[in-house]
Amino acid sequence: MANSRENFDEIIKRNLNLEQLKIFNRIYYGREDHCEVKLKESTMTSSKDNNFEVSAYSFTAAKEGRKPRIVKLGLVQHSIVLTTDKPIKEQRDAVFNKIEKIIETAASEGVNIICLQETWPMPFFLCTGEKEEWAGFAESASEGPSTKFLSNLAKKFNMVIVSPILEDDNGTWWNTAVVIDENGRYLGKHRKNHLPSVGSFSETSFYAPGDTGHPVFETKFARIAVNICYGRHHALNWMMFALNGADVVFNPSATVAEFGESFWGIEARNAAIANSYFTCSINRVGTEKFTRKDGSEVSRSFYGSSYATAPNGCRTPSLSRDKDGLLIIEVDINLCRQAKDIWGFNMTSRLDMYAKELN
Amino acid sequence: MANSRENFDEIIKRNLNLEQLKIFNRIYYGREDHCEVKLKESTMTSSKDNNFEVSAYSFTAAKEGRKPRIVKLGLVQHSIVLTTDKPIKEQRDAVFNKIEKIIETAASEGVNIICLQETWPMPFFLCTGEKEEWAGFAESASEGPSTKFLSNLAKKFNMVIVSPILEDDNGTWWNTAVVIDENGRYLGKHRKNHLPSVGSFSETSFYAPGDTGHPVFETKFARIAVNICYGRHHALNWMMFALNGADVVFNPSATVAEFGESFWGIEARNAAIANSYFTCSINRVGTEKFTRKDGSEVSRSFYGSSYATAPNGCRTPSLSRDKDGLLIIEVDINLCRQAKDIWGFNMTSRLDMYAKELN
Repeated sequence: MANSRENFDEIIKRNLNLEQLKIFNRIYYGREDHCEVKLKESTMTSSKDNNFEVSAYSFTAAKEGRKPRIVKLGLVQHSIVLTTDKPIKEQRDAVFNKIEKIIETAASEGVNIICLQETWPMPFFLCTGEKEEWAGFAESASEGPSTKFLSNLAKKFNMVIVSPILEDDNGTWWNTAVVIDENGRYLGKHRKNHLPSVGSFSETSFYAPGDTGHPVFETKFARIAVNICYGRHHALNWMMFALNGADVVFNPSATVAEFGESFWGIEARNAAIANSYFTCSINRVGTEKFTRKDGSEVSRSFYGSSYATAPNGCRTPSLSRDKDGLLIIEVDINLCRQAKDIWGFNMTSRLDMYAKELN
Repeated sequence: MANSRENFDEIIKRNLNLEQLKIFNRIYYGREDHCEVKLKESTMTSSKDNNFEVSAYSFTAAKEGRKPRIVKLGLVQHSIVLTTDKPIKEQRDAVFNKIEKIIETAASEGVNIICLQETWPMPFFLCTGEKEEWAGFAESASEGPSTKFLSNLAKKFNMVIVSPILEDDNGTWWNTAVVIDENGRYLGKHRKNHLPSVGSFSETSFYAPGDTGHPVFETKFARIAVNICYGRHHALNWMMFALNGADVVFNPSATVAEFGESFWGIEARNAAIANSYFTCSINRVGTEKFTRKDGSEVSRSFYGSSYATAPNGCRTPSLSRDKDGLLIIEVDINLCRQAKDIWGFNMTSRLDMYAKELN
């Protein structure tokens, strides 16, 4: 696939005329105009200097009796920096440096809540099947190096940060998203509910299915939740976050092209529609190569393509398949309730019937 | 919207070069090649003579220990024939004539199971808010005119037919799908579980939410179920049909462009992925105009675009937005279990947790 890195959205934009683009956009993205938000000069400079893509779109709500509740959300996709044979601390610090510049740029654009990709400080080594070699990447949710690092940035920039890490809780590992509030305080965590068992790939030898239920975090800016990676395949996982009051659900992921790239645009978007909230789909980029103790090699390529969907089903174009990127969406949280009012999915859900049937 | 009738899939096909088309197809449709099935000469003639579109695609499964279980499914979208002020019997008979030709053509292509659109024998008069004027369209599920008409065709062509009608059960109306087996016998029915309450449009003054649960019909060719129209917005509705063993779920609809055309490609497709079965999305076409008793007028335009999705997430192009059409898919039912084996969504679903949380 010579051109396989070419971006789906770019292909469309370049090849259709204006009339066709309107039809395509209306049916595919849900609206004719992407509502791009103009970025600052300094953002363009930072993007160029630090080699990451930035794009920004807005989702406005209809005028109504209540005041708009405007929030800026940031989604970050990135590759690892050093090869996976380097000392763990060096690998992590190199990622920290990269992320600091992206978060700094997001802050200068006024981003209020930012979410990083699944197990963002490390290469996604789980494909090796090995643990001991990589144990240094597992860390405390409340006071590990990642949480400390991001707490400083959260406080400095008055920003809520969602930090998906590999958690070490007294020797037991979990796939966990830590939420840090705008004062830099540890607000809580969510542990991945559904562990992939796809073909021969499984995460069950590393950690157990999450035991934290479906928490929604009341932050200063919005009520947020996190559906980690494979959990996006499970409709009930998405639904419980809605029943618990989420306005925004992040889906930090580490997903490879061999499996279901065509699902990527479907599942989180379906969840936004079904549950009348915003979904933010984040996937890492780049190829990661590992050498196992026995000398065998394994590598994984991630396809990026992070995007966001509004509760009315409209979505942004994706970030690229292979470059670091920051996607910013400026949203009016009132859109969640407006979508509920129009579509009535809550009102017609007959949950009592399903509760009985499931029992 | 001058070109709004232009078909999404056609725009893409005409404007991308072969390399770009491969990328687009892989990401959007889930596969580079649509696997078109060659149609008979007689089918092309019938299509031309009777002014309906026909397209056919195949979904094969990997070779495995078990024998392939090949089934041909047919999806029909159509407009009404006469204006809505004509006598009801005339209106219905005109639709019967049209449908007979389409089913005949489907039979000649070897279709085993065919599904018509929501309340297929009538204009979708519910937007008038009136009942009495239209009561003649409501009919008995087991022995009404539609069931009698289709029973003859089912028997003649050794075909299972799914017939969504407005049911009159001793004076109580229901939105119902009747299933007729290949011997022309009434096999059973399913009543629409979730009634739309979208903006100011509601069906609750006509009939109640279905009381038939989530039946799966064991037919000679496959285990099938029906998720009627608005039920496609409810993930649990789709899920219960899967838990009850469906291989194929039809979604006969009557859906207008003002609301959520961008959802159309998302929801049933998501359901196919999440539940590892085939979904068949059917929507009517054409504009229907009504005059109410008080002289006020109301009209509705439907956007067709019927399509099908396989359990591996691959989908067909759509039928057109405005023409009658027959979509045929030749499928290997083994693909359902193969998708389950690869993705493990069943195995990782944690339904016990959700049953508890919902209670």
